[in-house]
Amino acid sequence: MAEDPLSVGFLGYRFMGKAHANALARLPMFFPDAPAVERDVLVGTDEAALADATERLGFARYATDWRDVVDDVDVFYNLGPNFLHVDPTIAALSADTHVLCEKPLAPTLDGAGELRDAAAESDAVAACAFNYRFVPAIQYARDLIADGELGDIRQVRGSYLQDWLVDEDAPWSWRNDAELAGSGALGDLGAHTVDLADYLVGDRVGDVERVSGHLRTFVDERPVEGGDETKPVTVDDAYSAQVEYASGAMGTFEASRMTAGHKNDHSIAVHGTDGSLRFSLERLNELEVHTGDSRGYETVLVTDESDPYGDVWWPPGHVVGWEHTFVHENAAFLSQVAASERGDAAETDVPSFADAYDVQRVLDAVVASDERGEWIHLDE
Amino acid sequence: MAEDPLSVGFLGYRFMGKAHANALARLPMFFPDAPAVERDVLVGTDEAALADATERLGFARYATDWRDVVDDVDVFYNLGPNFLHVDPTIAALSADTHVLCEKPLAPTLDGAGELRDAAAESDAVAACAFNYRFVPAIQYARDLIADGELGDIRQVRGSYLQDWLVDEDAPWSWRNDAELAGSGALGDLGAHTVDLADYLVGDRVGDVERVSGHLRTFVDERPVEGGDETKPVTVDDAYSAQVEYASGAMGTFEASRMTAGHKNDHSIAVHGTDGSLRFSLERLNELEVHTGDSRGYETVLVTDESDPYGDVWWPPGHVVGWEHTFVHENAAFLSQVAASERGDAAETDVPSFADAYDVQRVLDAVVASDERGEWIHLDE
Amino acid sequence: MAEDPLSVGFLGYRFMGKAHANALARLPMFFPDAPAVERDVLVGTDEAALADATERLGFARYATDWRDVVDDVDVFYNLGPNFLHVDPTIAALSADTHVLCEKPLAPTLDGAGELRDAAAESDAVAACAFNYRFVPAIQYARDLIADGELGDIRQVRGSYLQDWLVDEDAPWSWRNDAELAGSGALGDLGAHTVDLADYLVGDRVGDVERVSGHLRTFVDERPVEGGDETKPVTVDDAYSAQVEYASGAMGTFEASRMTAGHKNDHSIAVHGTDGSLRFSLERLNELEVHTGDSRGYETVLVTDESDPYGDVWWPPGHVVGWEHTFVHENAAFLSQVAASERGDAAETDVPSFADAYDVQRVLDAVVASDERGEWIHLDE
Amino acid sequence: MAEDPLSVGFLGYRFMGKAHANALARLPMFFPDAPAVERDVLVGTDEAALADATERLGFARYATDWRDVVDDVDVFYNLGPNFLHVDPTIAALSADTHVLCEKPLAPTLDGAGELRDAAAESDAVAACAFNYRFVPAIQYARDLIADGELGDIRQVRGSYLQDWLVDEDAPWSWRNDAELAGSGALGDLGAHTVDLADYLVGDRVGDVERVSGHLRTFVDERPVEGGDETKPVTVDDAYSAQVEYASGAMGTFEASRMTAGHKNDHSIAVHGTDGSLRFSLERLNELEVHTGDSRGYETVLVTDESDPYGDVWWPPGHVVGWEHTFVHENAAFLSQVAASERGDAAETDVPSFADAYDVQRVLDAVVASDERGEWIHLDE
Repeated sequence: MAEDPLSVGFLGYRFMGKAHANALARLPMFFPDAPAVERDVLVGTDEAALADATERLGFARYATDWRDVVDDVDVFYNLGPNFLHVDPTIAALSADTHVLCEKPLAPTLDGAGELRDAAAESDAVAACAFNYRFVPAIQYARDLIADGELGDIRQVRGSYLQDWLVDEDAPWSWRNDAELAGSGALGDLGAHTVDLADYLVGDRVGDVERVSGHLRTFVDERPVEGGDETKPVTVDDAYSAQVEYASGAMGTFEASRMTAGHKNDHSIAVHGTDGSLRFSLERLNELEVHTGDSRGYETVLVTDESDPYGDVWWPPGHVVGWEHTFVHENAAFLSQVAASERGDAAETDVPSFADAYDVQRVLDAVVASDERGEWIHLDE
Repeated sequence: MAEDPLSVGFLGYRFMGKAHANALARLPMFFPDAPAVERDVLVGTDEAALADATERLGFARYATDWRDVVDDVDVFYNLGPNFLHVDPTIAALSADTHVLCEKPLAPTLDGAGELRDAAAESDAVAACAFNYRFVPAIQYARDLIADGELGDIRQVRGSYLQDWLVDEDAPWSWRNDAELAGSGALGDLGAHTVDLADYLVGDRVGDVERVSGHLRTFVDERPVEGGDETKPVTVDDAYSAQVEYASGAMGTFEASRMTAGHKNDHSIAVHGTDGSLRFSLERLNELEVHTGDSRGYETVLVTDESDPYGDVWWPPGHVVGWEHTFVHENAAFLSQVAASERGDAAETDVPSFADAYDVQRVLDAVVASDERGEWIHLDE
Repeated sequence: MAEDPLSVGFLGYRFMGKAHANALARLPMFFPDAPAVERDVLVGTDEAALADATERLGFARYATDWRDVVDDVDVFYNLGPNFLHVDPTIAALSADTHVLCEKPLAPTLDGAGELRDAAAESDAVAACAFNYRFVPAIQYARDLIADGELGDIRQVRGSYLQDWLVDEDAPWSWRNDAELAGSGALGDLGAHTVDLADYLVGDRVGDVERVSGHLRTFVDERPVEGGDETKPVTVDDAYSAQVEYASGAMGTFEASRMTAGHKNDHSIAVHGTDGSLRFSLERLNELEVHTGDSRGYETVLVTDESDPYGDVWWPPGHVVGWEHTFVHENAAFLSQVAASERGDAAETDVPSFADAYDVQRVLDAVVASDERGEWIHLDE
Repeated sequence: MAEDPLSVGFLGYRFMGKAHANALARLPMFFPDAPAVERDVLVGTDEAALADATERLGFARYATDWRDVVDDVDVFYNLGPNFLHVDPTIAALSADTHVLCEKPLAPTLDGAGELRDAAAESDAVAACAFNYRFVPAIQYARDLIADGELGDIRQVRGSYLQDWLVDEDAPWSWRNDAELAGSGALGDLGAHTVDLADYLVGDRVGDVERVSGHLRTFVDERPVEGGDETKPVTVDDAYSAQVEYASGAMGTFEASRMTAGHKNDHSIAVHGTDGSLRFSLERLNELEVHTGDSRGYETVLVTDESDPYGDVWWPPGHVVGWEHTFVHENAAFLSQVAASERGDAAETDVPSFADAYDVQRVLDAVVASDERGEWIHLDE
């Protein structure tokens, strides 16, 4: 890489900031062909925390206003809470600064539409961080499906179960507020499931055509940390959805933040005319596969050299973790950025804002269906 | 038991006939307090097959018209195809003959309503054969929930996955016909799930209040065995449903006869404020339990002497099979019959026709919801 | 079956008596070609318990001295404690009465040798009740191995874990006494493992050639039930063994009655040049199979119609239990008895006294190895 | 950290070199209190590969003779093949250079003894890289056992199953040669098991007192890559061992490189008077725990904030991978190095050369036992 390193700015330095900073730090050793990156500036409001994070995450400096940053860096990572997704991202894209934005794309479908349009008009690369596309077992599954190993796809079943709000005294956060987050389990967890389903089987079953949804808030208010107050919970604690794809395939999706005993259990199953497969995020190195030649499910440890990313990491059976999905995602995204800078066509596959908008349309239809008590056609 | 044995007649001698005949044959050794039974008469139409089954299943004789049987025996088992559930059962109940009827109660809600009313007017015992209530692990689960171990119940999730129709060349049968069967996966498999959910959590979440359903037929016609013809498939191959209970608890249910790799995989999960549990029929001796004291799920082998039916069978760890549910069911049903004959109150808990009608109301609402594209309130 | 039913006498009416009586009662419905049997006489010492069991298990009468029975019935089942295996069985065989004897064959190798010789000299059928050979998944595994699906066999690994003695206050029984039982976990549990290994791979790896063993008694005395006394434990609570087969294949075996959390966990794994398989008794309907075509293990539910005993019981996915192994075993044994009575060659495969003697030789060598602190060659 | 960074030299730059280099690169972000490190020099013989690795792994320079390095750096990592463990490590320790040496400590017990003595005489820190001690679930298990949750420990069972040599045409490597590697599966895999058993239960059961071992080479020669030659295999393909600890507790250990279907399946189970636990490396985020309060095993996902290293990485349920064990190990080792440099007592717990020598004594006894056909007492 004779080119100058790409300068990068992050909005957000907590969970997602740490995950992406770690990913960037690991690229040189494991993805030597990825472009060089300079962790330049971290954006936030709490200066003390920001200074600390800047050092910890290996950034050169920090800033307290994203307006000063979005056109000052080569690449802008929007890792802030959902309500901060739209404006800074549009500003960056308007300045032809490349953007990686966390999911869901925006708190509202309108916001997501603005972002999709801004991406279409910008010369910059715009990607939405659906990191579970980058699990090796998921890419292996996608290949099996694309190769026709499962035949025609008839059913997709996804659930995302967590338990961090099972206790009604768990504290309030922006994630419980409709203004700030858009929705609850639906946008936070369901967005992953809807995207993953599309990533796995979209080429075979087409778009989501209609949706029936159900949202539920089990705990109406929660205590504010460090005080006696409570604040209202205005988003869903759990959702479920029934889906029909263009091909007639069925989907059933659900998520909950209140399923005791489940920490981060994102499961997806696909059933076709010739086989089935199952995946669970808590055992993300494994894929369970049933094809025409088999009787039951075979548990495949997706760590062989010939597996996706199998030659990047360790010998067979030496498992990777959740964070590796971010390394893969950043390698793909930054390679696309570099190609764009060179004026080359993209060689990697990253989730676009158009993909993310399509996900949001489905989520929006789930909400509308819940409100109106009827199926919603996506082309309405 | 100084009393005369109860004479029993079966309508149906194939799968269900064999399952119940086996159950009756095992009662004396394992349930010595159950009433004595005489396997009297088997009803069917194919005389050769009938004669053979009569000998094999240990019956004294056979008959080709159920009208000759329903008031000639003490107890009538209606194990025929769904379209034969209503008339013979009503005839039996009118004659105050006790009835055990297979599920679903009837092909239509109207039929089920007639049966419920007939049961209410009869002095006989009328039970619907929801055998999965009699899995030891299910009764153990019910006790845990009743004891409050899971706290308030927020979510119930059930799926019933089979694969016997995954091949589009699998032959047509009465189970594929709306007239004869009522519905497909919904009535055959979903009935079990809806009943089991109610059995487990009904006392805590109340009745199903509203339902959103989705039905799908993937293969429109199937070959008739032994010929070149095909016949249309007029029932669902798969269904899904979203449910809201009176308490506000959510339910998500689905079933398919086309999920490759699954033979008889009836799974149910319950999530409450204090814990969760999971069950799968293919590992029916096990219950996975998460309570307030635990971090993950504990796999409990429900075979201890103190477990439901644990003192009836074998030492701990010596697992029972699917058929044992029929033995338990028959022991409970016949004890209730005996109590009724003596004029005593029932001491055992068996699924009533009113229970089965309630299940059918839910199934009917799923169909109506699918047709109308909207949520259906059960009290409509 | 025009022939007279075979009259049967049981020595023992508790756990094993119940298991075999149940098996006999189920034969007519499920194995119509098996010979008819008359449950004639039950032998024991406690008359009250005996009278009760006689009625419960469906026997015609009882007797308190086996000497009166062994030549008075067609078939003698020796289901008594180990120390009662030798004399009654020899008496029966001397009278050309067919015998099914529970395992291990005798408390000592000498006793087992006498029984093997008595069987060789008798015209009667003599079988040892290694019931785990009759698990459908085990027979399926044996077929896979015989068909060469795993290639040459290199390793066999077996463990049998129970927990009923984990508590040092669990009461003393004859199973804790060397005189009465011969050995502890070794004879009770290890006998099953050694036999099963031989049944699965013996044709490919040959006989056990040498053995290194380790026995351990963790609790030296136990309370006698209903009193203040204790009695010494003179058998092993746990054993382990290393084994070399004639082919050079390795075996590792172990059992314990003190592994908390395991009720009846008999597991066996086989590894060959082309594949592997695993089985666990607590999930006895399943076999995990890895062959050349697969990457991981496939979980096969061995309940298809084409599977061993798959056409006898229920449709695919409707699982059987532990007790079914006894039904299969009795069907095979009694068919061999009937063939013998007709002067025909045996058509079924049942574990012979010679097989059981060979198992006992291995167990005996484990004890000798433990005592002498060195490997024991079986041909010493 | 105002101190100068510690300069580090690695002997070896392939699998282990990459694992440790990655670990060092990740310390600043996740272990800010760990001392700063400068990746100074990489030692090897193939200059082209070395130059490439130097850049990739982020080292400043390379060298082709370890003699030039061992006293030129602050810390020396011996990550070379086993036959290179002794001399460079002794040279480093003689120069009071801190050493982390891969396992097994040496190809022979004599070599291991020399290293242990050199470490005792040196002022430097000497640690052996038993990385599996640093799996969070293993540390959680160790804490449970130390807290008495399992009571007195009676049995330890460990197996390490791989399949990379199951094919007899898999190429020869130094790992197949007794001179270069010392032993095969025993030293490579068994060393981990013996150390892990000691780490988990050593404080409760004491030292290994006697051992009975079994080694086996299934494939006697293997092709040399890139030629027509073969070379002899002079190490074991598989081993098994029976062990008795000072307390009387039993151990059973085994490993194989030929168990088809297993990639890196290191499993360990511990059984005590009050409970049991199980661990498998292929699902390294999970620990299965059975204690007095539970009936079966509970699957604990060891990723909570209060778990070992739980506050270092990601929120609950966001799993880590195999490589994280190296990060933890390096953090502990380097902190001890820093303490030593400051003249402080060690605050972290790392596997010492004395520990590694003790492991080697057990492995050596396994070999001796196999050769002599008898149990070997460790104090012989």
